[in-house]
Amino acid sequence: MTPTGGANPDLPRLPRGLIDEAVAKALAEDLGLAGDITTDATVKAAATAIAVIAARKDGVVSGLALAEAAFRALDDGITFNPHVRDGAAVMPGTKIASISGSARAILTAERVALNFMGRMSGIATLTRAYVDSVAGTRAVIVDTRKTTPGLRAFEKYAVRCGGGGNHRTGLFDAILIKDNHIVAAGGAAQAVKAARAHAGHMVKVEVEVDTLDQLREVLAHGADAVLLDNMSLDELRQAVAINDGRVLLEASGGVSLDTVRAIAETGVDLISVGALTHSAPVLDLGIDFESAQR
Amino acid sequence: MTPTGGANPDLPRLPRGLIDEAVAKALAEDLGLAGDITTDATVKAAATAIAVIAARKDGVVSGLALAEAAFRALDDGITFNPHVRDGAAVMPGTKIASISGSARAILTAERVALNFMGRMSGIATLTRAYVDSVAGTRAVIVDTRKTTPGLRAFEKYAVRCGGGGNHRTGLFDAILIKDNHIVAAGGAAQAVKAARAHAGHMVKVEVEVDTLDQLREVLAHGADAVLLDNMSLDELRQAVAINDGRVLLEASGGVSLDTVRAIAETGVDLISVGALTHSAPVLDLGIDFESAQR
Amino acid sequence: MTPTGGANPDLPRLPRGLIDEAVAKALAEDLGLAGDITTDATVKAAATAIAVIAARKDGVVSGLALAEAAFRALDDGITFNPHVRDGAAVMPGTKIASISGSARAILTAERVALNFMGRMSGIATLTRAYVDSVAGTRAVIVDTRKTTPGLRAFEKYAVRCGGGGNHRTGLFDAILIKDNHIVAAGGAAQAVKAARAHAGHMVKVEVEVDTLDQLREVLAHGADAVLLDNMSLDELRQAVAINDGRVLLEASGGVSLDTVRAIAETGVDLISVGALTHSAPVLDLGIDFESAQR
Amino acid sequence: MTPTGGANPDLPRLPRGLIDEAVAKALAEDLGLAGDITTDATVKAAATAIAVIAARKDGVVSGLALAEAAFRALDDGITFNPHVRDGAAVMPGTKIASISGSARAILTAERVALNFMGRMSGIATLTRAYVDSVAGTRAVIVDTRKTTPGLRAFEKYAVRCGGGGNHRTGLFDAILIKDNHIVAAGGAAQAVKAARAHAGHMVKVEVEVDTLDQLREVLAHGADAVLLDNMSLDELRQAVAINDGRVLLEASGGVSLDTVRAIAETGVDLISVGALTHSAPVLDLGIDFESAQR
Amino acid sequence: MTPTGGANPDLPRLPRGLIDEAVAKALAEDLGLAGDITTDATVKAAATAIAVIAARKDGVVSGLALAEAAFRALDDGITFNPHVRDGAAVMPGTKIASISGSARAILTAERVALNFMGRMSGIATLTRAYVDSVAGTRAVIVDTRKTTPGLRAFEKYAVRCGGGGNHRTGLFDAILIKDNHIVAAGGAAQAVKAARAHAGHMVKVEVEVDTLDQLREVLAHGADAVLLDNMSLDELRQAVAINDGRVLLEASGGVSLDTVRAIAETGVDLISVGALTHSAPVLDLGIDFESAQR
Amino acid sequence: MTPTGGANPDLPRLPRGLIDEAVAKALAEDLGLAGDITTDATVKAAATAIAVIAARKDGVVSGLALAEAAFRALDDGITFNPHVRDGAAVMPGTKIASISGSARAILTAERVALNFMGRMSGIATLTRAYVDSVAGTRAVIVDTRKTTPGLRAFEKYAVRCGGGGNHRTGLFDAILIKDNHIVAAGGAAQAVKAARAHAGHMVKVEVEVDTLDQLREVLAHGADAVLLDNMSLDELRQAVAINDGRVLLEASGGVSLDTVRAIAETGVDLISVGALTHSAPVLDLGIDFESAQR
Repeated sequence: MTPTGGANPDLPRLPRGLIDEAVAKALAEDLGLAGDITTDATVKAAATAIAVIAARKDGVVSGLALAEAAFRALDDGITFNPHVRDGAAVMPGTKIASISGSARAILTAERVALNFMGRMSGIATLTRAYVDSVAGTRAVIVDTRKTTPGLRAFEKYAVRCGGGGNHRTGLFDAILIKDNHIVAAGGAAQAVKAARAHAGHMVKVEVEVDTLDQLREVLAHGADAVLLDNMSLDELRQAVAINDGRVLLEASGGVSLDTVRAIAETGVDLISVGALTHSAPVLDLGIDFESAQR
Repeated sequence: MTPTGGANPDLPRLPRGLIDEAVAKALAEDLGLAGDITTDATVKAAATAIAVIAARKDGVVSGLALAEAAFRALDDGITFNPHVRDGAAVMPGTKIASISGSARAILTAERVALNFMGRMSGIATLTRAYVDSVAGTRAVIVDTRKTTPGLRAFEKYAVRCGGGGNHRTGLFDAILIKDNHIVAAGGAAQAVKAARAHAGHMVKVEVEVDTLDQLREVLAHGADAVLLDNMSLDELRQAVAINDGRVLLEASGGVSLDTVRAIAETGVDLISVGALTHSAPVLDLGIDFESAQR
Repeated sequence: MTPTGGANPDLPRLPRGLIDEAVAKALAEDLGLAGDITTDATVKAAATAIAVIAARKDGVVSGLALAEAAFRALDDGITFNPHVRDGAAVMPGTKIASISGSARAILTAERVALNFMGRMSGIATLTRAYVDSVAGTRAVIVDTRKTTPGLRAFEKYAVRCGGGGNHRTGLFDAILIKDNHIVAAGGAAQAVKAARAHAGHMVKVEVEVDTLDQLREVLAHGADAVLLDNMSLDELRQAVAINDGRVLLEASGGVSLDTVRAIAETGVDLISVGALTHSAPVLDLGIDFESAQR
Repeated sequence: MTPTGGANPDLPRLPRGLIDEAVAKALAEDLGLAGDITTDATVKAAATAIAVIAARKDGVVSGLALAEAAFRALDDGITFNPHVRDGAAVMPGTKIASISGSARAILTAERVALNFMGRMSGIATLTRAYVDSVAGTRAVIVDTRKTTPGLRAFEKYAVRCGGGGNHRTGLFDAILIKDNHIVAAGGAAQAVKAARAHAGHMVKVEVEVDTLDQLREVLAHGADAVLLDNMSLDELRQAVAINDGRVLLEASGGVSLDTVRAIAETGVDLISVGALTHSAPVLDLGIDFESAQR
Repeated sequence: MTPTGGANPDLPRLPRGLIDEAVAKALAEDLGLAGDITTDATVKAAATAIAVIAARKDGVVSGLALAEAAFRALDDGITFNPHVRDGAAVMPGTKIASISGSARAILTAERVALNFMGRMSGIATLTRAYVDSVAGTRAVIVDTRKTTPGLRAFEKYAVRCGGGGNHRTGLFDAILIKDNHIVAAGGAAQAVKAARAHAGHMVKVEVEVDTLDQLREVLAHGADAVLLDNMSLDELRQAVAINDGRVLLEASGGVSLDTVRAIAETGVDLISVGALTHSAPVLDLGIDFESAQR
Repeated sequence: MTPTGGANPDLPRLPRGLIDEAVAKALAEDLGLAGDITTDATVKAAATAIAVIAARKDGVVSGLALAEAAFRALDDGITFNPHVRDGAAVMPGTKIASISGSARAILTAERVALNFMGRMSGIATLTRAYVDSVAGTRAVIVDTRKTTPGLRAFEKYAVRCGGGGNHRTGLFDAILIKDNHIVAAGGAAQAVKAARAHAGHMVKVEVEVDTLDQLREVLAHGADAVLLDNMSLDELRQAVAINDGRVLLEASGGVSLDTVRAIAETGVDLISVGALTHSAPVLDLGIDFESAQR
């Protein structure tokens, strides 16, 4: 399948294999062995239609490639024409994409397409809200590993659509030393040293600390970044001062839309927000039929 | 793998193959090719630990079998001992399950286990809130097909854990005739007739209507249930009167925790709530290490 | 791949993903690692041919989409042109479809294509014989879960091609309470009550009974259908009288082409026949080469 | 999983991976996302039972390993105890295997287990009938590639259980030159020569001929076997005389239980019978519950 | 996907399903969840390029279809134009294929394409060296089962590209009786007899012997081929004399480019060389960008 | 399956899912549909044996977990007892592991087990040779992405067993800007800037340079590492001086066992060697049967 012409060049390319596998699985889940028995009973095989994916609420779009793949998996004669690109802000009524072709195919794939786009756009929308809240500060809003099982690639992409940044993808591509690791290693210094010795030269090391004393200890041992866990605004400010620009500082824990601005203003480099992926409500999208040929 | 001894006998059994496949995929996503490089660097291979999954907020538990499968996929020497069963109400601090064995295995599987349980428990918790809101009425709270792609079986199970009921699983197991189907079939009567002719004798037929006139037309043609889409409380009350117990009536659209009680009091049989699965925030769960042997 | 233009609009659409997966598996089974070593040795890469799938016996066609997928999986330059549609009656010599393109591709995919179509057409043919036997009665001939592992979707579709109806797809989409369930539940009434309480509102409940007393008990408790297991013609007639149109009555057990007419004439609504899918002989089909260009 | 203790040492071992994959797929097909809703509603989680797979008709058993795998996939606490081995002849009432453990697991896996065993035993039974018909002659009854898509390994194993032999597994492991290959190669001699040149030294070459003249031509060019297609008994006898023991002779086409003895008495080495795998009726097997603990 | 126009008609066709599966897996391994982050950051989405796969060393080409599949999996708008065919000899600088289209797609798939072609061409190149070394003798150079797990089909194809022959594909398609089998069977004669009784009529039987006495024993019992394991040149010559053309003789063990000619001159029919697939160095290939449009 | 007791705690854990999938695929490839027909014919089902994996040459062991998985996939009653751990140096005759249990299972899995271990040990052995060659210098020997498709995780693990380090895993976990990326981005400075802007904060950035001028330009723009491509020893020394410890310097291109020491002595931090994974000959391992019970 050719890449969608309307893809946003500033966003990463989602690997095609991931899209195809996820869409195939979602369709299998919805179609079972018997398929769409309602549409088969009520819509003629030759019927065609033009439909539009439209926003019902304000938000940020994400997941157009998955919607397209869903419709085209039903019938590769479907034309999918995006009117905006992933990352675009939309309002109630904004037409996001047009779909034309077999009416049966459009009706059968509709829910799978919206289930992907609604969730991804919900994440992009919530991310944008956090990003907008810290505008003018140095803080980057980043995601976590608290993603939906099976959908991490799409959810981290959606965070990018909302203007956020990505933390490590998984356990495999960066080191994040947490309290239990420190205890097991016999101290923060030993943990960082072990991490440097074990990991490849292309792997970054971050350490989670709870106190400013721990921060001082860690700074002496060469991490690339430090996660400041559940610190007060005052502690965060002191941490920024202690660090004095040496490593990246990430604030984490208890972040909400109410608190994020104040956290950002302490001067931290990064604020990680689990809610971006674990608690974003869906963006309300719908499909409207503009014309149909029975 | 033996079924968890503590499974709640009033809940459906989740097919083992679905659990194993979902957990394997989630672990693959988090481990990549290189695995958990932080734990490998900092925790000795022989270290053991006892850890506890604990609630940080009030809620309803769901997904114990997936958490167990995640830990045991890392090391089948892990002992997983649930203290409550799926469907149990928990408070901050409630110990949900104990895990003992390889410290590396526990640390590596922790996030995948919590990602499943957090989401499923979030759905169960939100469902319970809706169910409690309609206590004493005849209304059953049911889910929709607005589920996370790839996780429908688990999310519909979580709705059951919260005391809700399941609407159809997918496009394949029941007929739900919506507006576009009615238009394509040439009217509601024709649509119902076509559905009866097409579907097997073990398949139920529901029709979505927007107006009371449509309800009257549909009642004359033998559907098993009618979905009343976005009707006012007054219309719902009239619908209940018009129906007079003939078919099941389902209210849908614009349902929130603020409005659900009033909707239920109109006398409808079912209230479907997309938010149960598309917008439930995660239930905050954590893993605490109670003891460790380095 | 585009849906076959010649698909019969009165039949359900088989989910594309199921077709592709089944055909890929069948080809993998036949090609192994080394492929078609006979054709590679004896037929030039550039050779083309026109071949015809033809009936060798009377029967009913089913499975054209799988045959097409098999040929096109070998070479997507193949043109597959059906002359009849699934569900069509054919005689010895009837040309069912033409295939033109790479001679190697046609020869290599031939057996897989015929293995699918032969089995599915065999089921359709046997189903048609049963359906014709009960013409003029109210009885619908339906299938069972006694299908070939891995091919249930295709076999239930083939039953439709033969004019039969589908019973439930699997254990998941309808309730069928059998003797062991009744014993376990503590009686038929308790079993029906438990089923209603457990299953969603879109799920139908059928109960299997062996005696007329059991039928009377079950009718009092609200099943949607009753399966009359291995009853004599006289018992069936009494059952129809007792039921008096309240629920659907299904006759099952010991049904053959010799007995089915008499069973239908008792007035039952449905007759289920395991043999449709577990013992249908293949329909004899062949592929004839009409022209070849070496 | 340990190999079944009762496996017949004279039969090939079925690769474990094939069994597990086929059983998993069959269970997935029958359980869908919601599982066995009837059993969940009516049978207590703690209930146990002892059940017996019993023959309802005379026949030959095949597929015990698949039945065991089906039950144990539901609950690995199930004990599966075979009373006979694959290849055993059974009569109505013969107890084939006992299953004890979770009543829910036994009820849920029952149909999948029987669907495998019934089909495989049906093939073994029909094969045994052919084998018995040619007793005392030199002819071996062999199968073809006319197998059920996805189940070839099991069906060819079932033929062995019935006392038959296996022809090539697929297109990849032996050469069988048919009419179209001969035409494409420019003659039988050229085809055999090309086959020898193309195939590895461990690959046998068989050629299909329609006439005795073709047989003579082929014998001059070094095939390992010759398939005599649709020849009369008289032609077969002449072919045996012409061949004079040089290569293996296989009779094929129009073989039935009525004709097979006469064909065998012509002196051919092999008789291939497509019906063994494409048209064998199921062997009627059932599961009886001997005791249950609610 | 259409078969590559430039495929060499004298080589076997690799099953399409194997190619697609292997390429998809290799791309998944290289792209993970986040894709090619370097190219996404530095190359514009609209950029196009023309690139050439070129040889850096002398060798024999193999694997063009896998390279093509890799590029086209990234973007099916890519044009892949082979200048030579599998099996062609190349020199440093020989242009093997041109690729034109999306610059991002070419850069992202480059390493996967080269990883396949480099390995396969390395095997073809080493095979050609052995084949050339025995030119003029009767000996055929053949491979073994010492292949890379997961890539056997491609490696055995690469041996063919180098002019070698294939030994059996796996454990399933031919019998090779080794020392442990002989001991277990109670002697070589018993082993051969058991093999003939167990295997189908289309399966060849080879026996491995260490001594000339064993050879004499085996010749008396009807094997199709004999593997002479680690024999001296003198023993090999005697073996050829003893055999006197009755069965195929295969020399194996301790074969190198230094020794293979002398082994061939003993008169054996086949020389098997594990190194062809287990120790062939990669053929050095590179991709040069000829033009680019940013 | 429980992790092997003898695993080397200084090496990373290979994800269990990757091992199981690779072993299952390799066995499927070798067993096909018919399984190990030689062993089935010649070895009794009840026969047991004790066998030993032994080294035939000097080398470094890698892949014990895959060998164990292969044997146990055939029969989980097999006992696999490693005598050394991955990373151990062995000599001809060193006993690496003992296997006891079903003789059939041992014979059938033998080749798959050795194919994995031979390749992985070959890579570990070659890596150790490079590592030993640079002993006493600061240089770390690292791998590349020139790995066997489908086996990257195992090959990178084998490099670790040999004492080498891992470069990035794939395109997804680190940025490596090569010449074409620089051209596309409009210069090295722009490329680094784009990379920093695009990649997450946990991702390292390396740039490939051909000249010392390019090195100076890149150093001014903040890469984490610089790859010095195909530079002379003199250039490498100058590069080390220019860099003065600011970033990691990696030498690449034209590295062999003859040249690696001199390269290391220039003071570079890393030397990457494609040959570790693309051209390592197999380590010669064998399986000896120590006792057998027929």
